[in-house]
Amino acid sequence: MKDMNAEILSVGSELLLGQIVNSNAQWLSKRLADLGINVFYHHTIGDNFNRLEQAMRLAKERSDLVIVTGGLGPTDDDLTREVASQVINQPIEVDAQVLAKVESYFQKRNQTMTENNRKQAHVFQGSTVFPNDEGMSPGIFTEHENTGWVFLPGVPREMKSIFNQSIDPFLKQKYSLNQKIYSRVLKFIGIGESLLEDRIADIMKKQTNPTIAPLAGDGEVTLRLTAKTKTEESANAMIAKVEKEVLQRVGDYYYGADHETVENRVFQILKDNSLTLSSAESITGGRFIDRMISLPGASTIILGSIVCYQREIKENILKVSKDVLDQHGTVSAPCASELANNIQTMMNSDIGISFTGNAGPNPIEGKEVGLVYIGLKIGSQEPLVESIQVNGTRENIRNRAVKKGFELLYHYLKQYHSIE
Amino acid sequence: MKDMNAEILSVGSELLLGQIVNSNAQWLSKRLADLGINVFYHHTIGDNFNRLEQAMRLAKERSDLVIVTGGLGPTDDDLTREVASQVINQPIEVDAQVLAKVESYFQKRNQTMTENNRKQAHVFQGSTVFPNDEGMSPGIFTEHENTGWVFLPGVPREMKSIFNQSIDPFLKQKYSLNQKIYSRVLKFIGIGESLLEDRIADIMKKQTNPTIAPLAGDGEVTLRLTAKTKTEESANAMIAKVEKEVLQRVGDYYYGADHETVENRVFQILKDNSLTLSSAESITGGRFIDRMISLPGASTIILGSIVCYQREIKENILKVSKDVLDQHGTVSAPCASELANNIQTMMNSDIGISFTGNAGPNPIEGKEVGLVYIGLKIGSQEPLVESIQVNGTRENIRNRAVKKGFELLYHYLKQYHSIE
Repeated sequence: MKDMNAEILSVGSELLLGQIVNSNAQWLSKRLADLGINVFYHHTIGDNFNRLEQAMRLAKERSDLVIVTGGLGPTDDDLTREVASQVINQPIEVDAQVLAKVESYFQKRNQTMTENNRKQAHVFQGSTVFPNDEGMSPGIFTEHENTGWVFLPGVPREMKSIFNQSIDPFLKQKYSLNQKIYSRVLKFIGIGESLLEDRIADIMKKQTNPTIAPLAGDGEVTLRLTAKTKTEESANAMIAKVEKEVLQRVGDYYYGADHETVENRVFQILKDNSLTLSSAESITGGRFIDRMISLPGASTIILGSIVCYQREIKENILKVSKDVLDQHGTVSAPCASELANNIQTMMNSDIGISFTGNAGPNPIEGKEVGLVYIGLKIGSQEPLVESIQVNGTRENIRNRAVKKGFELLYHYLKQYHSIE
Repeated sequence: MKDMNAEILSVGSELLLGQIVNSNAQWLSKRLADLGINVFYHHTIGDNFNRLEQAMRLAKERSDLVIVTGGLGPTDDDLTREVASQVINQPIEVDAQVLAKVESYFQKRNQTMTENNRKQAHVFQGSTVFPNDEGMSPGIFTEHENTGWVFLPGVPREMKSIFNQSIDPFLKQKYSLNQKIYSRVLKFIGIGESLLEDRIADIMKKQTNPTIAPLAGDGEVTLRLTAKTKTEESANAMIAKVEKEVLQRVGDYYYGADHETVENRVFQILKDNSLTLSSAESITGGRFIDRMISLPGASTIILGSIVCYQREIKENILKVSKDVLDQHGTVSAPCASELANNIQTMMNSDIGISFTGNAGPNPIEGKEVGLVYIGLKIGSQEPLVESIQVNGTRENIRNRAVKKGFELLYHYLKQYHSIE
């Protein structure tokens, strides 16, 4: 099979007004990628004859396969069939089976079928028609000058149903698709995107199949390895080979693959080793413990937390010494250290973690906005403290603090219990 | 002003692979619609020089304004600037201010700045550069042959921040936009969507300008009133008239408008009355207090919280009586009542609120999944307890519990202090 280049043409003014997000394009892209079809363009057009016509002419020129969604309904602003009929030069005809279905729908409900409802039975002469189990307008496939055209309703439920049931197997057979795309996402924490890329620049450069694509976001970096091949086995082997090379360089920062999160990894290590955890949270204000409690099964691991947003709570409930608070302040390494130590004792947990810092908007006790101290007390080891300096909004600072907490936990628990 | 026709050009292979949904295009479309700018196309292109060049040439031909997002990062596959430079025939230069920011970022962290990071300071000769408070790559505006080009980072947080802070006011001035569409969102809590609609069905029916559109979500209901008119004054007058009619019917459930949240309203009432708050959280696991601490200025109001996910913490630290726990269990009204009472005492706050319930997946102590008790202790009043039964996932149950907590706080604080 030669490479197939597809585009997704979404029709509907509601998309251009921002009333809905184009989840259809995402869903279809994933499915086409799984079939080994390259999606090179998403193009969204409103319910306008001329602009839709231009977009279809462009698609005809540049794509082997065009998936059109939307504009197949019964109302006057549903123009997809009329425009396509002109662009691909195929007259419209009525599909008797679909018409019977539309008619019976109205009969059953004792409603009068208005004339425009007949439109839903319109297909192209010689096209292949696929039933819609979730609604009226069928899926349609037709070919014109080496370009394949698939038409699907815009309602996601109907679109997905027709694609799963009919289009997916149809495309596989029609285009003898056997090459598939497999990918694996490697996840790293504690290293920036540019440093990571720098370390593996030569591997990335020489690599064509699988390809390596980095993506940064929210305190971590991912690498997507994508292999094009015929079987899952060969894909796995191709990916494993490159993964090994990559991890030899930056394996220290690797924590998991695909849907794994650093929370989940920490959770799993705690669970596997029957360790319990508690937290003392000032700057993070409960966000760290909330993330942990989001995970099912948290009750066997998470004992509790004290959110000590005020100095008084740190002093009176968490018993941070007055000396530390007076001399070093609440935003300080000694305070983080005592908080981690004391929450561990109070909650009688194996591990205590603490967060104290300045989320802004103004300096506190002479400490810059964005400065965060994280304390960690594991078993009977001495408490350790790390600090970070984060830019951005209050929420960004608090989120990065939580993320850094997970990073530290993962880092030290991995060492401590020498897991992997 | 003549009609302005815009398109949104999204750059990034991750969109075409279906790894992420194009929420940027939706967000920007809404914002452009509010500015009275027509969005005629969304076009999404991968990280490919030729295809991006063709797409930019097409945009140049057909649009008055092109908003390009993505492809501005430091890595080799970030091509937006290079391609645009060719298409609009404007050389790239280094912006000294942005470069200084990038350099200082690495200096502060004692990290080496790799060469590719300099790319983030690349702008076009003669372009207008807008600061990025959330990241490195700035927003850029430039003009070429009557087409305006806006370049924004693809990270939604950064894109939105630059748009709100700089692009929106810049476009208004540059293109003398007199905004034509005004809307106001009324927010209600404690009433369901269908009941609310029922109460105002006749108003909704007769109303054409402003229109009234209801939307339900996440434990609350909103009504969007949208007026089309030439001046802000006339829009405000038109909206105020309908708002008054609506609030005569359902004003009891109204808590605020537009960007107000129930958290904010509660926060404001607490602040206006110099009241302090603390929480004891079992099922919500810190999520309630986290929401409060997200608000700037929280330190004057929020004292702290104890997350008591285990019975032992409820008993030993929060001193819930053993009798209550043995007879009624942890998921019970008496437990919620004692938790609210005791956290108020421990933290010495004016108000104590508590959350205990079963987030699933299995019944606890014979209590159904989704059952939540919320305790509220205000000043020297007797503690009160309300319960709700929520359907859905673990996260849904926990979120609704938090929301209900804010609803109760708003409801009782409004009455207690007779605000509004």
